[in-house]
Order: sequence, then structure tokens, then C-alpha cells
Amino acid sequence: MQLCGHPLEPGSPLFVIAGPCVIESEAHSLAVAERLAEIARRQDVLLIFKSSFDKANRSSGASYRGPGIDEGLRILEKVRAETGLPVLTDVHEASQAAVVAQVVDVLQTPAFLARQTDFIAAVAATGKPVNIKKAQFMAPADMANVVAKARDAASAAGHDPDNFLLCERGTSFGYNTLVSDMRGLAIMARTGCPVVFDATHSVQQPGGLGTSSGGQSEFVPLLARAAVAVGVAGVFMETHPDPAKALSDGPNALPLDRFEALIAQLKALDAVVKAAPGTDAELSGR
Amino acid sequence: MQLCGHPLEPGSPLFVIAGPCVIESEAHSLAVAERLAEIARRQDVLLIFKSSFDKANRSSGASYRGPGIDEGLRILEKVRAETGLPVLTDVHEASQAAVVAQVVDVLQTPAFLARQTDFIAAVAATGKPVNIKKAQFMAPADMANVVAKARDAASAAGHDPDNFLLCERGTSFGYNTLVSDMRGLAIMARTGCPVVFDATHSVQQPGGLGTSSGGQSEFVPLLARAAVAVGVAGVFMETHPDPAKALSDGPNALPLDRFEALIAQLKALDAVVKAAPGTDAELSGR
Amino acid sequence: MQLCGHPLEPGSPLFVIAGPCVIESEAHSLAVAERLAEIARRQDVLLIFKSSFDKANRSSGASYRGPGIDEGLRILEKVRAETGLPVLTDVHEASQAAVVAQVVDVLQTPAFLARQTDFIAAVAATGKPVNIKKAQFMAPADMANVVAKARDAASAAGHDPDNFLLCERGTSFGYNTLVSDMRGLAIMARTGCPVVFDATHSVQQPGGLGTSSGGQSEFVPLLARAAVAVGVAGVFMETHPDPAKALSDGPNALPLDRFEALIAQLKALDAVVKAAPGTDAELSGR
Amino acid sequence: MQLCGHPLEPGSPLFVIAGPCVIESEAHSLAVAERLAEIARRQDVLLIFKSSFDKANRSSGASYRGPGIDEGLRILEKVRAETGLPVLTDVHEASQAAVVAQVVDVLQTPAFLARQTDFIAAVAATGKPVNIKKAQFMAPADMANVVAKARDAASAAGHDPDNFLLCERGTSFGYNTLVSDMRGLAIMARTGCPVVFDATHSVQQPGGLGTSSGGQSEFVPLLARAAVAVGVAGVFMETHPDPAKALSDGPNALPLDRFEALIAQLKALDAVVKAAPGTDAELSGR
Repeated sequence: MQLCGHPLEPGSPLFVIAGPCVIESEAHSLAVAERLAEIARRQDVLLIFKSSFDKANRSSGASYRGPGIDEGLRILEKVRAETGLPVLTDVHEASQAAVVAQVVDVLQTPAFLARQTDFIAAVAATGKPVNIKKAQFMAPADMANVVAKARDAASAAGHDPDNFLLCERGTSFGYNTLVSDMRGLAIMARTGCPVVFDATHSVQQPGGLGTSSGGQSEFVPLLARAAVAVGVAGVFMETHPDPAKALSDGPNALPLDRFEALIAQLKALDAVVKAAPGTDAELSGR
Repeated sequence: MQLCGHPLEPGSPLFVIAGPCVIESEAHSLAVAERLAEIARRQDVLLIFKSSFDKANRSSGASYRGPGIDEGLRILEKVRAETGLPVLTDVHEASQAAVVAQVVDVLQTPAFLARQTDFIAAVAATGKPVNIKKAQFMAPADMANVVAKARDAASAAGHDPDNFLLCERGTSFGYNTLVSDMRGLAIMARTGCPVVFDATHSVQQPGGLGTSSGGQSEFVPLLARAAVAVGVAGVFMETHPDPAKALSDGPNALPLDRFEALIAQLKALDAVVKAAPGTDAELSGR
Repeated sequence: MQLCGHPLEPGSPLFVIAGPCVIESEAHSLAVAERLAEIARRQDVLLIFKSSFDKANRSSGASYRGPGIDEGLRILEKVRAETGLPVLTDVHEASQAAVVAQVVDVLQTPAFLARQTDFIAAVAATGKPVNIKKAQFMAPADMANVVAKARDAASAAGHDPDNFLLCERGTSFGYNTLVSDMRGLAIMARTGCPVVFDATHSVQQPGGLGTSSGGQSEFVPLLARAAVAVGVAGVFMETHPDPAKALSDGPNALPLDRFEALIAQLKALDAVVKAAPGTDAELSGR
Repeated sequence: MQLCGHPLEPGSPLFVIAGPCVIESEAHSLAVAERLAEIARRQDVLLIFKSSFDKANRSSGASYRGPGIDEGLRILEKVRAETGLPVLTDVHEASQAAVVAQVVDVLQTPAFLARQTDFIAAVAATGKPVNIKKAQFMAPADMANVVAKARDAASAAGHDPDNFLLCERGTSFGYNTLVSDMRGLAIMARTGCPVVFDATHSVQQPGGLGTSSGGQSEFVPLLARAAVAVGVAGVFMETHPDPAKALSDGPNALPLDRFEALIAQLKALDAVVKAAPGTDAELSGR
């Protein structure tokens, strides 16, 4: 498939989805995006800016949700215009799909909604690439059914059915904890979809702080390295200049000043792994 | 709280939510409902007829989804008129809440959507009792946040905030399997909400059959007995005259001809447990 | 099978294994055993006194382990002589099996050692009944292999191969937590062995306190009721006059002054369930 | 610490533990060891030959267990003499520790026995390096207690207390499945012990074949790469010339003819990761 003007095929170099969890303000989004754009240029990597206009499933109803769809899309449009970065955001209801698709380069679906047939179909029918997150309650192999729903909807709308990324973001492991099963990356690749590893939400501790989710950002680099060594197409990492003050998901955000060094390391690992794709039958069909 | 004209308080006798998973046809719904109404009369138990008008999150996009909202609500209305049973159905989008609430006695929310703030608020704002299912990916204690969202929305709409049931339906346990943690029933009871045990979906094997979910209906009676012995307010059990031919979730449906004997046994256990509520501090606040 | 002079067959009334986790002193063991003997007489229940002479797998090497095998067996012998209760203790190495079997009525094997072939064989070869604990890392169905090892060893030693109880004590569920899968009781019953539910260790939080295991004794009654409602042959519950001062596993011990009320409740539930054994095919072969 | 004449400290190059699961015969062990020795020379890697003389915890009592301790140690001694490779084997009872330590370069403890205090102490007291496997039922942080037991025993016997490797081999995840939590590698490294990743048993499906354990050897390379990218000190991989005919654990053995290409790839990843140890605070204390 094509992603933001770049071909994605077996052996394509690693791409990155990054940004602050939620749009905190226009100024904040632009400031972070500008630093990410510089890093992308220096590291010569495809980087897609991610930020949410609404957090529709916060643990607590009292937490910050974001600027809303209109203001959020306006800010994302400005981010792209000013930084040149392609932009991605997540959709929360079928009715939002078309309007969001007019603005962003890539759509994303929340993990909790992976089994909602009409929702997946609506997003797929826009014709935009979609990063489909595996639910925490699903086995990797079961994502084949979700991909089939998406491909059917895309085809029915006259679009390319090979337009979907699958994203691992952790699997339920006891209570208030997720675990990243690296085998799942290879299993999801059997669908033919490029696979993305979300290193941020994989270290989330859902509900772990009582009225909000905890996180273990210290493990983000470690899990990102592991996934890249497995051979993923892309990594997803939320980053923030000051995680302790982030309005959402701060406990699992990577500090922005550690971002570039990690990207450099991931690129080096990616080059090693993709130099020898034939050693791993399970990923060779990707 | 009041449920279908009956008070629900500590020590109230067990109630039952039962019916075929999905509305297969008017005739089928009526036939099952009539048999359930007879059993309810003979066993002197509050029984609420449950059936879905739409299965919005089937594993596969090719599976039967139901008659749709208009036809489904028409049939549920007829079931109530002809059998005298109160009726319950599940809602799948915020926009459906008001229209469904005009017809049914109790609303229900899907487990996968337990964290969707706007959805929970919309359903709660109708003023109808809601059976809120705990998500497979949530710890029992985290349902307190969901209850807070629901109560806030009910209060804001001018309704009684004590109008919610919490329903356990299994927790993710490895891949394609759920486990029923009986401790969770007591933990959810700490919210002050009556707790329901869904013995049907607790034996589901999500995605376990490749393009549909498997199930272990042989364990339904066993888990229902266990939950009643813990002290739940109600049990939820899908039942079908011929599970092998059911259009949805047959593998975990209880055969209708085994239903009455099980109800009789559960009633006897319920009487034993509720005769001595003081022995269990963790359920005493319910 | 016969257990301490009582037949164990489908429908036999519930028996109980109870006592303090570890032998703290002769006086302590005798005091607890006398109170348990009175309760057993009043409630007309078969009660087997359990206490360990050595805790061979404490989280920390610095914790109290017990009086050792010689002194421990001496005390157990005295408990039986003075109270009339049959006694049970756990064995930790194959070399201990024969000597322990000379003193106690029932042997028990630690869950962690369920897969050690020579150990299971040595204990089984004594000819004494053995309560074999399912490992936290094993599926219930896999206990069939353990039973086969035990039966082979008993037969080879010229003893009755139907001399084994299987005991559920919780399954690993994420980190530092166990979950009790009530389905497992029925699955283990398919071996033909009477099934015991250990309500004490099922609420253990292994390693949960850093250098020792935590526990949730508030859930012991609840899980015991659930298991009895499933239809188990026996329950295992550690009890202590003052759990906060117990030398081992205090956090999950049932306070001794709550013991009799719980036994009475369990007996009432047991009577309900065993009055209708035919409703549950999966337990009928027991 | 020193391992077979090589220093192990932060940044030391990856070492490898490899060999067939069980000693099948002298000729078989020698043939495999000779091929491994050639690979080790060509790839310039420290390789320790591993094979078991007894499989003391097979799922079924009817499976092959090995040649026994005397014959097994004789063969391991010959392997070392003829190939120059250091050798490692696992111990199953405290009473075996001293005699095994006289022959092998490194001892190993079975995962199931990680909590047996006397056993860990006996092995640690030999003064030989020990590869201590984390139990499937333990959280990574809880291995700190096991290390403390081992260090205490080594010190008490007059040996260096810094003589232990910690080995991850998968954690219980539902029934009959293990998952490899890559965070655990960093958490275990906080003990100061070099960490080994066992890529073979991490893909085991315990009990998954009814009377024996299944496995997913296709995921061995993938998980080994992930662990090396995290930054482990060593990897453990069982290998066999013809896994389908292996007498134990064939389903998760890496075919011997794929071994060298994988080692080459792991070495390249190891060089990338260890070139920048400072990027990862959680492993920097190792």
C-alpha cells in the first residue's frame, strides 16, 4: 500500500507515528510538531503527526477530553500546513469518519471499538488509510475478521482494499495491566497488512490510578526496540515536552528530549532486521 | 432501586434476565417468551425477557445481525403485550438510546462499550434502568468510574441516579477465553449497584471458532450456581429451544428445556445465601 | 474412595480440611484443633486437621518455615490423639513421603511440584490418600496426566489407584494475582477424582507484599460458597485465631471465630446442590 | 561476574546457551555439539552446550526422560573434552547439586522449582555459576527474593555471591500458553544479575498436546531478536538436527540448519543495542 506518498512493502524502512496524546492547544501542537519535523528531516524518516481532538473513553468523566472535532481538525490542518508533516487522528463514531477524512492523511480507530462492525466499515469506506488498533481483548489472529470487514467496506465504496495498517497496543493480562506479545506482530502480518507497534499504550496500566490510567514510560524504548527487531513496518509513540504536565496519558508518554536518540537507535535495528527478511518465514509474506 | 415494579435491595430474591440472544423472528420470540412466562409464574420469579435487535459487533461481517431497530422494537413490544413479561434489549449507539427507552423496561449496554463516555451518558440520561456490562478488559473496581459517569448523566437529566445494574460477563484470560472471577461480583457491589451475573457470555470463547465465537454451554449451570451462592441480585442467561440452530451465540445458550430445573435450583441456593447476609461484609453494603 | 473412614462418592456430603497454615507450636496446634473438633461435632461434618511442618517455598528465605519434620509429625500425632481429628500435612521431597505417611491420615502435595514425576510417584506409592494440588501454571484438564502418574505409582506399589483428591487453589492471572476458575472444578472431576476447593490459597497474592505473599481473606467465604454451589467434594480453608499474628499466610487465613457460621452456610448450600446431581452432566461422573 | 572464563558486565557481547533439549545418545550429543562449536568459532561467540540428563517433569509419565545422571554427566564431560565447549545442565533435586557441579561449567534450575528454598540454596552453594529460571507463575520483580536466597547460600558456603544468571522463559497467560513480557528482562536486570532470554521454552504450549507440550518454533527467531534488542546478556535456544524426531520438546526446537544465520543476525542487533547503553535507564544498572 501507499502511505502518505511512500510505498509500504516488505523491507520498506521503518516509519513513525508520533505526537502528544491529545491536542492541548494550537500553540502546543505546533511547537511539538515543529520539533518532530526537524527530527524527521535529520533522521530521514517518514513521521506522521498524531494527536486526538477528543478522548472519548477516559477512565473518569471528569478528565480533559480535548478541543472537540471542529477546533481539533482546524489545528491539525494548520500543523500540516506549517510543518509539512502528514497528520493522523482517531475517530470515535461512524458519523465522524467522513469529515475527519477530509482533513487528515491517516485515520485511526480506537482499540475498544475494533469489533464494532458499522464503525469499522464507515471508517474504511472513506478511502483514507486507516491504522486499525487491535483490541486489548482480542487475539492477534482474530484481527483477520476485522480486516475482512474493512476491506469489504472499502471495496464496496470503490476504494483500494489494501489500505489498512494493523496496530498492536497491548493485550489484557490480569487486571490493570497489559502485556505485549511480540508473536502477535507476526500473526497480524499474515493478513497482508503492514503492522505498527504502539509502544505508548502497550505500557499503559488501564485504570491503574483509580480514576485514570497509569503507565510505565520507562519501558517505551525497550518495547519499541523489541518490536522493531521483530520487523514491524512502523512504530507509534506518544511524546510530550513535559509528560508530568500532559493533559492525557502523561504516565506513558516519552519525553520529547529523548525522542531523537531513540529514533536513531530504532533505525539502526530496522536496517539490521530488514537486511535479512528471508530468515523469518512468518513475516516474509508481509 | 426499583426494577420493573419490584424493589431491589439487600436480601431481595433473585431475578432473572433471559431469552434468545438475537430476535430471530416474531414467532420465535413469542414462542420462547411464552414458555419463559410460564416458568416465571410457576417458579414465582421476576423474569425479564431479553433479545437483541442488532448484533453490532459480530466476529465476522457475514454473520446474521438481527431484524434492525424498528422491527426489533415492534416485536419486543408485542412480546410484552402478549406475555406480560418486562423486556430488555441492548443499545449500540448513543443515538439509539431515546427511541429504545420508549419501548423497553430495561436498557443494556454492550461490554465492549463500557468505557465510551458519551454512550454511557446517553443511555443513562433516558431515566430507564440500565444493565451496564463490565468490559472484558476492565477490572471490577474500575466499574466505579463507569457508574459515576452514569449517575452524573442521570442526575443531570433530572432522573434518579440509583438506577443502574452492573453485570459481570467474564474477563479476558489469555487468548480466546474468558474467566469468571467471582470476587468481582463483591467488588462491583461496593458501588451500591445491584450486581447481575451473565452466565452465558462468561462461557463464550471469543473468536474461538475462527469467524465466530465458540462457547461452553455445559458450564452455564455451574457458573450460575456459583454466582448465586456468592449472593448476586440477578442472573442473565440466554436460552434457545435448539441452540445448534440459533442464529447467534448458540454455543453458549442454555437449552430451553433445561431452564426451569436450573431456576428452581438457583432459587433454593439464593434462599440459603440471603438468609444469612451478615456473614459477608463485602456484600453487606449492597 | 474411602477418606478417613468415610466413603467419598457422588452425592457424599461436603468434607472440610482446615487448620493453621504452619505448626506454630504444640500448644497452638492443640488449641486450634480442639476448637475445630467441637465445630465438626456440632456441625456433623468430616473435618481433617491440616498444618505444615515446613514451608519449603516461602517468598523470602528469612521467613519462618516451621518446626521441621520430626517435631512437626510428633505434634500432628498428638493432635490426632487428643482431639480425634484425622490429620493432613504436606510433603516437600520424595524422601519425606514414607515417614510422613506413617503418621498422617492424608498426604498433600504442593502446587508448585505438581509436575515433578518422581515426587508425585513417591507420595502416591505410600498407599495413603493424597490431596494433589493443581499448579497455578496448569490448566485443569492437564491434571489428568498427574493423576495418571499417581495411579500408576499406586498400582505398581500394590495399592488402590483410586486414592487421590484433586485440589484447585487458583490459577496465575497476570502478575501477583490468582483467579479461581470454577469451570476447572468440573473439568478436574472428569478424572474421577473427588475435587477439593482451597479457598485460602485461591485468594493469595503471590509475592504481592514484596518479600511475602499478600492475601484477600475477605473473599474466602465468597469463593468457598461458589465452589460448594458448583458441587465440590470438599473445601480447604486455613484458619487462625488471630490472622494478623499468624507466622505464615495470615493475610488469607479465615479468622477462627468466623469458621463455624461459614461451615453451617456451606453445609446448607451443599445439601441443595447434591439433592439434584443430575442437572449437571459435567459433574455427574464424579 | 565471570562466565566460563569470560567477563560479564554491562556492554559485554551476547553469549549463547544451546543444544538439544535432552541427551538422546552420546553420538547425538557429540554430533550436535561439533556443529555448534564450529558455528561458535565462525561467529566468534561464547557458546555453552546445554542438554538435560533427566526430564523430571514431563507432562506424561510415559515420555522419554533421558539417560540418567551418571551416563548423562559422562556424555557431557566427553562433549567438553572433544569440542572444547563449556557445558550446562539442569539439576532437579538438592541432592544432585554437588555431583553435577563437579562436571559442568554452569548449573541450571528448572522454572517450576524457583521457589523451593532448599533447592536453590543447594545449587547456589556449589560455587558454580547458576542460570536460575524464572517460574512461569512468578512476576519478574519477585525474582529478587530468589536471588537473595541464592546469594545468601553462596556467601555462607564461602563463594562469590555474584554468580547467578536470571532466565526468562515465559509467563502463564491463560491456559496452555505462555507469553514473553519483554519488560521483565529489564525488571530482572535490576537485581544486578545478567539476564538470559530462553527463546525455546517461551514458545512452549504447556500441556497443549494433551499428554505432551506443544510449541511454536516458528516464533523462536522473532522472540530472540526482540530480547536481544532489549539488551539481554545471553540467549538460550534449544536446537535439533531434526525437531520432528526429537525425544523431547521438538515442537519448540530451532532446526539446527537455521541456527547460524540467526546467531549472525542476533550479533548484529546486539552490537547496535550495546553501542548506546545510556539510552535506557532501566538496563543501565546491569
